[in-house]
Amino acid sequence: MIIDCHGHYTTTPPGHQAFRDAQLARLVDSSLREPQPPDFSDDEIRESIEANQLRLLRERGGDMTIFSPRASGMQHHVGDEAMAGAWARACNDLIHRVVQLFPKNFVGVCQLPQVPGVPIERSVDELRRCVEELGFVGCNLNPDPSGGHWSSPPLIDEAWYPLYERMVELDVPAMIHVSASDNPNFHTTGAHYLNADTTAFMQLIQGDLFAEFPGLRFVIPHGGGAVPYHWGRYRGLADGLDRPPLAEHVMGNVFFDTCVYHQAGIDLLFRVIDVDNILFGSEMVGAVTSIDPETRFHFDDTKRYIDQLDLPESDQRQVFELNARRVYPRLDAALEAQGL
Amino acid sequence: MIIDCHGHYTTTPPGHQAFRDAQLARLVDSSLREPQPPDFSDDEIRESIEANQLRLLRERGGDMTIFSPRASGMQHHVGDEAMAGAWARACNDLIHRVVQLFPKNFVGVCQLPQVPGVPIERSVDELRRCVEELGFVGCNLNPDPSGGHWSSPPLIDEAWYPLYERMVELDVPAMIHVSASDNPNFHTTGAHYLNADTTAFMQLIQGDLFAEFPGLRFVIPHGGGAVPYHWGRYRGLADGLDRPPLAEHVMGNVFFDTCVYHQAGIDLLFRVIDVDNILFGSEMVGAVTSIDPETRFHFDDTKRYIDQLDLPESDQRQVFELNARRVYPRLDAALEAQGL
Repeated sequence: MIIDCHGHYTTTPPGHQAFRDAQLARLVDSSLREPQPPDFSDDEIRESIEANQLRLLRERGGDMTIFSPRASGMQHHVGDEAMAGAWARACNDLIHRVVQLFPKNFVGVCQLPQVPGVPIERSVDELRRCVEELGFVGCNLNPDPSGGHWSSPPLIDEAWYPLYERMVELDVPAMIHVSASDNPNFHTTGAHYLNADTTAFMQLIQGDLFAEFPGLRFVIPHGGGAVPYHWGRYRGLADGLDRPPLAEHVMGNVFFDTCVYHQAGIDLLFRVIDVDNILFGSEMVGAVTSIDPETRFHFDDTKRYIDQLDLPESDQRQVFELNARRVYPRLDAALEAQGL
Repeated sequence: MIIDCHGHYTTTPPGHQAFRDAQLARLVDSSLREPQPPDFSDDEIRESIEANQLRLLRERGGDMTIFSPRASGMQHHVGDEAMAGAWARACNDLIHRVVQLFPKNFVGVCQLPQVPGVPIERSVDELRRCVEELGFVGCNLNPDPSGGHWSSPPLIDEAWYPLYERMVELDVPAMIHVSASDNPNFHTTGAHYLNADTTAFMQLIQGDLFAEFPGLRFVIPHGGGAVPYHWGRYRGLADGLDRPPLAEHVMGNVFFDTCVYHQAGIDLLFRVIDVDNILFGSEMVGAVTSIDPETRFHFDDTKRYIDQLDLPESDQRQVFELNARRVYPRLDAALEAQGL
């Protein structure tokens, strides 16, 4: 079984963006009526998925995608708490619709209604709703809801603990994933995403979060940002900062996906990171959708690169299935309930 | 001949930091007298270098280091223009002293007196002084003088052009190098440095700076941040953004150093980046000074990793010497004047 841990609903029916546009218009003109999320027919949703994520999943030999709202669309830096709440609910409800229509191919991960400066406590109700009522198996946590101004405390700060407590209680992991950049220095998918991955990992080295929360689990996407390429630097910095070795200190709770879009990068990832810490992911349909002229395959068809590794079968099963089931126990339970 | 393109004077005599401390004290208490940089004897400077950078250079088989002030000490985010100017001059003058004492082993690269919000024009006089009067061969350019708040325009913005014009006129490259982080989200050497490298490269893809300045050259340190590991992503993003292929668009003017502290990372760097674009560097004495328990050698002894590659001799010469002489023509001229 092949589980892609990192897929986004970037192909929603047009009415979903129209709802967002109405929210944005009301930010400018507060006399406008508060918009309501539209009703979508099953067919509209089915088409948007069958022609895109599901088609690609099948073409590439995958079975299931851990599916969340479009990351760049979360836009936590725009609007107030009420707007962020309505937007997160609409996005998450749409993910739920997809999962209901394709329960064998998609499982939900939720967007949190984060707002810069608003305590993270205010996001836990939506997490609980998504997990307990909608059957979601995790959340996307934005370490920088300001959109590239990095005004929130680091992830090891106690300000984040109310969310971590709830995550541990619900037994769900978070993928650490920023949204669109509001800072002209940072291209969203070419800089901000990777920087956030790198930044979060270093914060985890600096702190001692997993002593406090042994059951807390984070997936750092995009192959861990710059981390595996600079693995020697991180081992050396941990030593220089008198932190325990990375394997003991963070790698029991931190996992990297395989959203690295060339063979040399995937080779490096598997060379330096233990196979127990790697989850298959493609970020599909995502940042890079074109075909690599050098290989004639899609850049983001990451399964091909992993297949090239000729891993032992037990390692393949770890990366493609078992690690995801371990990191997302509610996914495991859902699959078992399906007899899988 | 082996030229290390990335060394910092992190071991200055204590009086240099005392001068900085006096500057900082005066920020808090403006009634204090404006401090003056101390006089250092040749012996003080000689000792600080012979016991550290020069010893390590010799032990590791290097010949020459392109040497600049401590990067984390630049602290462009602290103080006003007068203070930044006095500090840059003191730091650069000290580099000049080292070069005068060890002209066969060190050549200077200068710190610019950048201040967030102050036009970059105000830094060009110090660049000119260092190049024309002190014989320096390049500068370190901080793309984020705010220290992790990223409040300046991207490097492709015209606001930076006055510096680029002067760099082209003087025929000197810049290493793109941030300083200490003033943002608790970013560990200086574990996140901010690498993020800046990644960010700068993506900015260069977005823009068309080298069409405007064909003679402009940038060295992106720390192995290019996350870039080589995500080379497929950058190739795909360039395509998605309708930019020319990276080789044509940026790689005629952008170079990466080899400050990557493990074999797997160096292997990747040389696998994806053309040997013409790689300059040997160690960042010594820098971010990671300890010994790797896995190899029993210093993490930052990057020459060892390159030696392991068994490159053809012509490629070795490129990486260890010829690329540096090409990117830093004033270094080449200085070496030729020495008969080297």
